Amino acid sequence: MAFVGVDLGGTQLRVAVADDRGNLRTVVRRATEAARGRDHVIKRIVDAVKEAVEEDGTPPRRVRALGIGLPGPVDPAAGLVISPGNLPGFRNVPLNRILTRATGIPSFLHHDAHLAALGEHRRGAARGASEMIYVTVSTGIGAGILLGGELYAGAHGIAGEVGHIVLKPDGPLCTCGQRGDLESIASGTGIARAARELAPGTPGSALHGLEHPQAEDVVRAARAGDELATAILENAGTYLGIAMGTLVNLFNPQLIVLGGSVIKAGNFLLGPMRRSMNVSSWKAARRGLRIVRPALGDDVGLIGAVEYARLRARHARLA
Amino acid sequence: MAFVGVDLGGTQLRVAVADDRGNLRTVVRRATEAARGRDHVIKRIVDAVKEAVEEDGTPPRRVRALGIGLPGPVDPAAGLVISPGNLPGFRNVPLNRILTRATGIPSFLHHDAHLAALGEHRRGAARGASEMIYVTVSTGIGAGILLGGELYAGAHGIAGEVGHIVLKPDGPLCTCGQRGDLESIASGTGIARAARELAPGTPGSALHGLEHPQAEDVVRAARAGDELATAILENAGTYLGIAMGTLVNLFNPQLIVLGGSVIKAGNFLLGPMRRSMNVSSWKAARRGLRIVRPALGDDVGLIGAVEYARLRARHARLA
Repeated sequence: MAFVGVDLGGTQLRVAVADDRGNLRTVVRRATEAARGRDHVIKRIVDAVKEAVEEDGTPPRRVRALGIGLPGPVDPAAGLVISPGNLPGFRNVPLNRILTRATGIPSFLHHDAHLAALGEHRRGAARGASEMIYVTVSTGIGAGILLGGELYAGAHGIAGEVGHIVLKPDGPLCTCGQRGDLESIASGTGIARAARELAPGTPGSALHGLEHPQAEDVVRAARAGDELATAILENAGTYLGIAMGTLVNLFNPQLIVLGGSVIKAGNFLLGPMRRSMNVSSWKAARRGLRIVRPALGDDVGLIGAVEYARLRARHARLA
Repeated sequence: MAFVGVDLGGTQLRVAVADDRGNLRTVVRRATEAARGRDHVIKRIVDAVKEAVEEDGTPPRRVRALGIGLPGPVDPAAGLVISPGNLPGFRNVPLNRILTRATGIPSFLHHDAHLAALGEHRRGAARGASEMIYVTVSTGIGAGILLGGELYAGAHGIAGEVGHIVLKPDGPLCTCGQRGDLESIASGTGIARAARELAPGTPGSALHGLEHPQAEDVVRAARAGDELATAILENAGTYLGIAMGTLVNLFNPQLIVLGGSVIKAGNFLLGPMRRSMNVSSWKAARRGLRIVRPALGDDVGLIGAVEYARLRARHARLA
């Protein structure tokens, strides 16, 4: 018995074949080639799945289920990709049906950040946590929520859009069209934008004169003692802390797993985050709360997708 | 077979005896006399319960369970009252155990706003809604959340503190100690505070010269065309809309029940709320969302407490 996990991003497509217990056995990586459109991307997924199964040596009929994580919004219950920003042409695509038909494997899609949360819960830093939230802060900000130890998807699979809660109504414009949401301020994109806007007016800063300052440049400059860079990360951390406080007050979780490339800024970001979280949430709601780093690395999306395939196969067997 | 529901507020204490199907049969009302301290209040609850059962004519041994709602924070799983602001002396009180022993009826406490949500779900405006949030905006702002048709309480019963999510870090101080949370801006208390602060500097306003302007004065002045009053309600509605957007993006609910005395301000508040909610949440997350008024009146807390008693009795039977 085997399972397939697929992690579909705007840039990279990864496919894993895993054994009955969810251990990844064979992994295939491809460029997504998203710009070439929906049909091309779907063909690349199907080909990569077939290749991975063949390379793995598992007879296709012994593959029980396929889980695929991709950027939201998606509707997992309906098996629909709604309109992910970085996959042009994917609009209301019944991907479960398409993949099931093309691969012969019962296929189940979900939001990639939710599947990463599932992965950390089943095999990573959140094992045993009943109420847990996974937040990843990198180019964008994604999250997944498990309540009672199970994925929480909301009425239509759009729950957990932490990156898009509004914290500063007159703040910067986000790619989603909202103004002053968490992602517009505290993501890598938001930090880079702040540097781009503020550096030209700050001649003393190491960021001054950089043509396209990135989040990594800001972190590097902060480490070298740059005041502007430190202030930008402090602002990002403060708003990240308010968002964390909101999660704490609304969900009263036991555990928050906080990951993503931007978290590598360390205390320049996390110090202000902690202070601001503590004045933005109830003490009673923080009781027993642990905030930890993810335990799974780059494969978290693949591991989560495999775990989702196992979960759906189990549900099907019980139904 | 009968059930008892208790609604314990800082001012009023209400007790109901209900039949097997949850229909209220006998209701007893008392002043809480909170200022006289914990032991006195507990005695008043016990006496009122005994009186209500006697008045109802149900033999005490036929009362299956008692549900009691009171202001948070409480820990329903542990049966503990933690530290409700308006019930002095109640600090880490094991109320389940105390009431069970004193009344002879298995007793179960929960946060009053959560029980109101349960009441609206079982017998009011939210029947059949799987993911629903109940928000009540009056002196304070309370909320209760049902996910998968069941009360969501978080790790320690503190979930759903919508009134205390921070929306304006440099905003007014809330009674809870936080700054710029929803309650500090959009509750009756917040609206009255804004009037108190702004009216002295606005000689043309009908609020100018009022010694202690209340939220009702602001609503009345707005209806008469007062600009300051209209602006105060617009500001409150705008922040209420941001909070609603946050709920939508995080929980992706099917239904929000929005009640409380402040909502009676109507479109002065609800117009700005809708506009702001629509720019503070994802369209995909608002799909199919309904926002409705509560269907239950002042008895919502009692009805919810009775429903909670029925729920716990059912759980006990299944265990």
